[in-house]
Order: sequence, then C-alpha cells, then structure tokens
Amino acid sequence: MDKKKHIVVIGGSAAGPKTAARAKRLDQDAEVTIIQMAPELSMASCGYPYFVGGVFNDRNQLLSTPYGEVRDPDFFWNTKGITARTSTEVTAIDREKRLVTCRNLETNDIDQVPYDKLVIATGATARKPPLPGIDLEGVTTLQSMKDADFLRKIRDDKDITNAVVIGGGLIGIETCEALQLSGIDITVVELLPQILMFLDWELAKILENHVKSKAANVLTDIGVAEFIGKDGKLTAVKLANGTELPCNLAVMAIGVQPNTRLADEAGLKIGPTGGIEVNPFMQTTDPNIYAVGDCVEINHRITGARTRAPFGDLANLQGRVTGENVVLGNTAQFPGTIHTGICKVFDFSAGSTGLSEANAKAAGYENIVTVINASLDKPEFMGAKLLISKLVADGRTGKILGVQCVGPGDVSKQIATAAMAILGNLTVHDLVNADLPYAPPFSLPIDHFIASAHLLENKMKGRLNGISSLEMKKLLDSESTPFILDVRTPDEYNMMRIGIGETLIPISDLRNRLQDLPQDKDQEIVCYCKISLRGYEAQRLLEAHGWKNVKVLEGGVMAWPFGREK
Amino acid sequence: MDKKKHIVVIGGSAAGPKTAARAKRLDQDAEVTIIQMAPELSMASCGYPYFVGGVFNDRNQLLSTPYGEVRDPDFFWNTKGITARTSTEVTAIDREKRLVTCRNLETNDIDQVPYDKLVIATGATARKPPLPGIDLEGVTTLQSMKDADFLRKIRDDKDITNAVVIGGGLIGIETCEALQLSGIDITVVELLPQILMFLDWELAKILENHVKSKAANVLTDIGVAEFIGKDGKLTAVKLANGTELPCNLAVMAIGVQPNTRLADEAGLKIGPTGGIEVNPFMQTTDPNIYAVGDCVEINHRITGARTRAPFGDLANLQGRVTGENVVLGNTAQFPGTIHTGICKVFDFSAGSTGLSEANAKAAGYENIVTVINASLDKPEFMGAKLLISKLVADGRTGKILGVQCVGPGDVSKQIATAAMAILGNLTVHDLVNADLPYAPPFSLPIDHFIASAHLLENKMKGRLNGISSLEMKKLLDSESTPFILDVRTPDEYNMMRIGIGETLIPISDLRNRLQDLPQDKDQEIVCYCKISLRGYEAQRLLEAHGWKNVKVLEGGVMAWPFGREK
Repeated sequence: MDKKKHIVVIGGSAAGPKTAARAKRLDQDAEVTIIQMAPELSMASCGYPYFVGGVFNDRNQLLSTPYGEVRDPDFFWNTKGITARTSTEVTAIDREKRLVTCRNLETNDIDQVPYDKLVIATGATARKPPLPGIDLEGVTTLQSMKDADFLRKIRDDKDITNAVVIGGGLIGIETCEALQLSGIDITVVELLPQILMFLDWELAKILENHVKSKAANVLTDIGVAEFIGKDGKLTAVKLANGTELPCNLAVMAIGVQPNTRLADEAGLKIGPTGGIEVNPFMQTTDPNIYAVGDCVEINHRITGARTRAPFGDLANLQGRVTGENVVLGNTAQFPGTIHTGICKVFDFSAGSTGLSEANAKAAGYENIVTVINASLDKPEFMGAKLLISKLVADGRTGKILGVQCVGPGDVSKQIATAAMAILGNLTVHDLVNADLPYAPPFSLPIDHFIASAHLLENKMKGRLNGISSLEMKKLLDSESTPFILDVRTPDEYNMMRIGIGETLIPISDLRNRLQDLPQDKDQEIVCYCKISLRGYEAQRLLEAHGWKNVKVLEGGVMAWPFGREK
Repeated sequence: MDKKKHIVVIGGSAAGPKTAARAKRLDQDAEVTIIQMAPELSMASCGYPYFVGGVFNDRNQLLSTPYGEVRDPDFFWNTKGITARTSTEVTAIDREKRLVTCRNLETNDIDQVPYDKLVIATGATARKPPLPGIDLEGVTTLQSMKDADFLRKIRDDKDITNAVVIGGGLIGIETCEALQLSGIDITVVELLPQILMFLDWELAKILENHVKSKAANVLTDIGVAEFIGKDGKLTAVKLANGTELPCNLAVMAIGVQPNTRLADEAGLKIGPTGGIEVNPFMQTTDPNIYAVGDCVEINHRITGARTRAPFGDLANLQGRVTGENVVLGNTAQFPGTIHTGICKVFDFSAGSTGLSEANAKAAGYENIVTVINASLDKPEFMGAKLLISKLVADGRTGKILGVQCVGPGDVSKQIATAAMAILGNLTVHDLVNADLPYAPPFSLPIDHFIASAHLLENKMKGRLNGISSLEMKKLLDSESTPFILDVRTPDEYNMMRIGIGETLIPISDLRNRLQDLPQDKDQEIVCYCKISLRGYEAQRLLEAHGWKNVKVLEGGVMAWPFGREK
C-alpha cells in the first residue's frame, strides 16, 4: 500500500509554490504536485511594474531564483523534488473521491490527479466590469506575465503616447509610474474622492499632488462610462461626465476578485467578503482541503473581522503555514493581517499599517485620536528627506490602531517599525520612550515615529491643540474667521507660504509682538511653521498669555495639501 | 513672593537643552536657565564624524535648527524664553540652600544661581588613560566642537598622512571612516579580540573585513603602551608588543566615563556602573535634583540591571521626561534602554538591539538559541544589497532577546523593526507571521527579519540543524573531519568559494548523486550554499535518505568571515 502523502496544489504563482516547497521540505516522502494554469511558475508578479517601467530588462529575472535559475518544472523537480504541471487547468474537485480533474490547455488532454490533501491557491483576477468596449484591443490589466510582456513591448516600441489608468489604488499608481517612465502621458481615473484608499484623505492628497507634479494627470470622483474604439482598437476612454480622453491604451486597475469558482462548485464555504473561508490552519470547510493566498479571506488582527488582503508577502507566509499543516497535521496557525502595505510613487513612497482613521471609524471605534507629523528623516546635514505621517490610536487606551506615512524619506522603515508596534499591542505611551537605532546617517535623534508619538501624547494630554489640514480647510470654508499665524522666519515665508491670509510673526519675535495679535482672548488663532514644532511653541506661549482658543496646524506648511504660494 | 519655579540645568549639549525646552513649554511661567561649560549649545555631536569626513562643510550646521538658526543664547532667549549661559562652569551644588556656584570661564567671575529643581546633564568625557605621552600634540579625542574643528582642519590642510585610532567601538569606527575619507591612512587598534563589542564575534569579523577592504588596517587583541613624540608632537604609537606605528595623529576612542564629580561632591548617590543613580522619574537621591543623559545609569529593560547607555537619542528622551517632571511633578517615567545602536561603516552599516549572544550569556540566560541569516534586502532585480543578521532568543519561550545586523543593505530598518519587536515582548513564533510592508523597491516578499525568524523557529523545532561560522571554524580546527558540501551552481562556485575542502554538488543534482556522499550514515556532513536556503534543503534531503548527522552552515558563503577564495 502506498503510504506516501499525495499533496496537490492548485496554483503556481506565490502561495502555491511556497506551500509545495515547505510541504516537501518537511516531508521528503510526500508526493507534491503543483498544477498551474499559466505557462510560468513562481512569477514575481509584484515586480511587473518595474519590468514595464524599465527598472530592469530581462523578463527572466521575474522567474528566477536569486542565483539565476529559472523556476520551471525542471527546476521544481530537480531542486525541490516537486512535480509542476504548467498550462494546466483544474476543472473540478471531487471531494468524495479526493480527485481533481485537469485539462492540459495546450493539448486539451484531460486527466485526474488523486490527493490526500488539496491546496487551493487559485489567486485573484483583476476586475474588468462589463463596460461597453472593454474587449477592445488596448484595454488591458497588469496581472500576468502576458500583460507585463504586452506593456513592456509598448514601452520598447514607443508607439503609444497617451494612456489611461483606471483605478488609483496601489496597482494603478504603480502602473501609472511604470508607463510614465516609459514616456507615455498618463491620466489616472479614480471613481472615489481620492487615490490610494489605504491612506486617509490628507495624506492621499499629498501623494496625488506628487503624481501630478510628475506630469501624470489624476482625476478623482469620476468613473469610466465606455471604451471607444475604431476597427476593434481603443481610441478613447469616455468618462461618466462625457469627457473623452483620447488614448490607445487603458489599464484596468480597480482591484481584484478572488478566484473561488472551483471552491464554490466543490461546495466549500465562501466567506462574506467573497474569499474562500479558512480557519487559522488555512483549512477550508473540508478538512482535506486548504486554501491560501489571494483567493481566501483571513482574520483582521485588529478588528477581528474577516478581510481580504491580496498581498504577496502574506501569500508566502500563508503558504509556509499551510505547507506544514498538510504534511504534519495542523501544527501551525496563521494569525491574520494588519493590512500593512507600501508602494513607490515616483520620488515618494506611501505606506500604511493597521487602520486609517476612516477605517477605524468604519470598524466602529468611537474614541479615536489622530495626529499628523511632518519632519525630516535624518539631520539636515546628512541629506535629509521629508516624512509625513498620520498616527491613529484608541483615545481611551492609547493603543496604536494605525500608522500611515508618505514622502520622499524612508517610509519603509517607518511602516515596518509601526507594524511591529501594532503587532506588539503597543500604546502611544510606550512609543514616546521607544529605543530605536540612532545615528545621523539613519535618523534624527528623536526618530520621526517617536516624534509622532510625542505629538499624539501631547494632544491626548491636552497640551497640543492640533488640527489636521482637512479640519483647517473646513474651518476656512466655514463662517469662522480664525487669525492665522505663521511663525517661521521671513526667509522661509518668502520662499514658500500657504497663502490663506496668514500673518507672519517669527517665533523669535513673538514674545515681543503679542500686541500684534487679536486682543480678544477668545479669538480663534491657528499657528503653524514649517512642520509645526514652532507652531506648538507658539500655542503654548499664547495660552500662557491668556489666549483661550489657540490651535496648531498639524504638519505645518509641509503637510498642507491644498496648494502653496511660492 | 516669587511663585515662579526656578529650573536650573547644568549642561547644554543634548539632554540639557531638551529638558529645558520641554520644561518651559509645559510651564511658560518657569524661569529656566541652562549653564553650559562649552562655548556652544545644543551641538549635534553625533554629527562630528561626518563634518570631519567632509559629508558637509559648514560647522554651523552642527549648531543650527533645521530652518538654519544657530542655537546660541539669543536663540534660546528669543525663541524659547530660556536663559542660556555658555562658557560657564558649575563648580559646586549647595543642596541645602538650593544654589549652584558658577564660574565664568572667560572672566573668572563667580556667582550663584538659586534653583527649585536642578537638572544635572553634565554628560561624559572620552576616556584618556594615563599612558606615557598622552598629552603630546596630535593625541586627541572626538567629543567636542573643538575636537571636530581640530580634525576637520587636518582634513583641510592635508598635511597628515597616517593616523592611529585607538578603540574599535562605535566612535572609533566612525572616526576611522571620517579620517580615511580625508585621505589619511588609518590603523585601528583594539584591545579586545574584536571591534564593535555590541556585535557578536561572527558579525563583528565581517565588519572588520569590510573596514580592512577600505584600506584601513585593524589590529585586535592588542593595547597601546606609549605615545612617542618629538618636540612635544606625536610621531608614533607604540603597541604593547613593541611595534611602533609612525603617525602624527592618534584619536582616543576607548569609551566615555560619566561626568559625576559635581553630583558626587554634592553627596548624590553614584550607581554601581559609575553613572549617577536615578529613579524612573530621572530623579537622583535628592528629590530636588534630577539627572539626565550620558552622566546617569538607567534601567536595562531586558535584564532589569542598571546600565549606562550614552546615546543621543536616549538623552533626548530622558530630557523630555525630566522637563515634564521638574515642572509638573513626576508625571512621566523613563522606562530605560534595550541598548539599540547603529553606525555606518563605509559601505556597510552595523546595528544591534537587545542582547548579543555574549551579553545574554553574561546576563545569566541559560537557554539561548541563535541563528545567523544572510539574504538580500530586496529582489535581485531591484538592485538588492546583502544583509547578515543574528537573532538571539530565549530557548524556552522564544522571546526575542536581541538582533544584530550588518551589511550594505538596509540595516537601519531591520534594527528599528527588531527594536520594536523586543519592546513589544514578541517571540520568534510571533515574528514568523509578522505583517510587514512589502513591495519590490523595499523588501523581499518574506522580509529578511521574518526570514531570520523562520530559520530560528526551524532550528528550535529541530528541523534546521544550523551551525554558526564560529562553530564551523572550531569544528575545522578540531579532530573532526566533516564532509563539507557546497550545493551551489558551478558558476557560483567558480566565482567565489570558501575553500575548506568542500565538495561541490549542486542542489539540482543532489538527488541523483547521493552515491557521491560518504556512505557511512553517521558521518558528519555540513551543507551550505550562498545563504544556506539550499543548504537547508540539502540537509532535509540527506536526512530523508538516512544520514543522521547533517548540519547547515548558517548564512552560507555570504556570512563566512574567515576569508574566501576567488
């Protein structure tokens, strides 16, 4: 009797191969088979935009090990002892007989493969809504090697000058950059009021300004009505308001939907978010079937809700857990996600971990405190770059719920550090005295993240009376007439200013010029400087002199997203 | 009656000004005075090596705010409302009368300043042992603006060709780089068996190799006997073994000792480590006197022991706590340090947080597990750089005790992330499924830190049988004759190899060439590859085929510090 375990993995992109490799490593006797629909295996799909954008030129780098071997079926067999079948579709799962039916997409041959444990790693597909003209030549996505090759050819051929990217999420913005670097004029069209929904509006707007500064147009709050073509080829994208954007290329990037058809047809439970339901062992409602990667829904570690998090890193981690469980029997658990993500956006990066303010509100948190902090990432004399962060915490406990960060500075470090703080259940009060690595080439003496915590603690203790750029804008648009006080130096003011009727009194003069302020001590005053440290000092000073309604514009001039005068 | 609080701060470098500024911000009515011995205030002293090395040229950048104002007494008065007296020494503290006696170093005038709360922020002084010739011209330290100016002038004058740096710690190595960048031939002399004692030997050796590759010589395990001079000027450094190193410049960097004389003379308790004893409020044994910064000893958050941690970031954080306490009355606590530090070393960085293996042993931990991991910091196609880490954990609970990291890659992010993991009391088992920001410009799908945790968990669960480079060296130097198996590709082998009698069998051939291995299944076998992922796969494969004593060289070729063949 054959005692070897038969492990069959459907899907060979990220989660699938990781599951297979881990299973085989932990049980060399297991027979492990990957069945993959695409011709390629183990594609570094997150790298597609950088191949399209010309960061590197050899497509095999997307398919190779760090030491340069292409991960094809020979590689999987020789190096890993794993059978990998490519260009092969699984058409059905017979749970009772523990068989999957396969169809070779090149020969159309059908056969059946038995399993003891089955792993569904079917991924997700870029959404393509049924708009008129969606099938025109020139309307594409960026989710397969084929897509990447298609867009890379466009770069190399240089025969397209205008393109529209539909969707301002992570993939849309990465695609925008890739095509812009290929010399193509881009318009990003986003249905929602902002790009990059993992950010709150204030930070997303800063990113949008940066994208626009790179000669890529961004339209928000508007949808696409139709793709217009001629002779089967795209010629323009028509927006909901009737505007036509002439272009020969449109890339759909409005999110992905999990590929759950096989699981659904096999009677496995699909969760409320549309992903395959799994328990912490990554096991579906059939104990012999596991599911991993972009096709599942997982636990949100902060809210406890089910969520989808189609990220390559989580796919790999889930694969590692699942690979162990299918051969050793549910010895490992996957705890879920805190929705940590990052993307490069031209000279900026944008990252987030945990909940944004909007998401925290949507999740039912009632007592939320936030702060926006702008500062350099290291001392000026070391070639510093700007970071702008938003911290979101539970106002009752101070527990960090989320951190967002954007700017040209080292966003990746900020978000990685913040993610670990959230995983450790740390509070604002823990962070104010965190012991992080400091030397001038790497950070300020008080790291940006710790400084953000200082601000938020000051705010929570009623010392800093901060308002966000968005709240300030609302104030300006309201009946109120706050006295607006810029406390920077004249040099700084002359170089760049917000231009909302502010009065300039440098902080070094303020003590001697209190008579130049409104003498009604109830008058609302909003102070700021470049990043609002001096703004905070001004608030404290004015309060000591009796003014009762003094606020500080968080993040100062640097975090102001509504345009500035130069 | 004068109800204003009088806050006097002795010391105006880092902790002092931060204390003063925070106190004044929180109590605008307080009279805050800084008394500073040096002519300068708020010096960015950690930046001295970069000024000396020519990273920037304007010394005022070390003394300025990010918006370009020099932090002199006028600045402190006008902007902060703080009195700052420079070139003034405090000669005595009268605790009963609450008075400090000051001497103006320019005029020799003596006066007394009363305090309600006193803050001692006297810092630390670079150690200069009483060796013959220590007072020769050309023997210096790098701890004051004066030192920095002196060394910078040497760079600019280009009249010195050889220098000796005594001490291979953080400051010594930063000074070595600064002088080497100034075109000076450097020898670093270190009394201990390794440089950078915050690292374990295996990683320190990799750094030492890198320093040597930059044409700076490094001598370990040897002390200095004497400074030899002519006409009062240094001409050579004589080592303990009699060797003379001709040079006109020697920089002492063998650590600092806290400036505790004033505190000691005032009868305040000095702790066992030599720093002023303070409680979590940063209060000395006199409730009206606080102490902050390099002159104190603080709590080690992992071991609970008292420790000294003379770092600029902690000085600032302590100052923030103390500034609050002196005006609001012990409302804030400083929890201590986990000894997080980092330095740039030419093209590498070296960082550490928590306990090294050596320190964990010294602290009494009995069940310590460690692993060394070498990997790229992002995908090859994004221009990846190498990271080599060592994780140290409690073998019983898996709690992370310490993380070290070196290499040309993004060490700073690794250490910041690790520091937060330690502050959050996370275990190896938490880290294996951490949710960190992933996109190709920033990290691998499985971040280096998470991968390190994977290795350590595999090791703790008996799956990976890893040995460190140091253990391997001991094995090679012993009676044992392990069979050494390099499983990389022939191309990799031809480019670079360890050269310790290894046999090359690429992992892709291994399954078919088991007959080429020693057929005695008890024979000790050590496998490795470039970073030892394939080495681990080889171990698992050989074990499945009956070999009982198979090990993996952790970090593979990349972490091997004993020289390689090319």
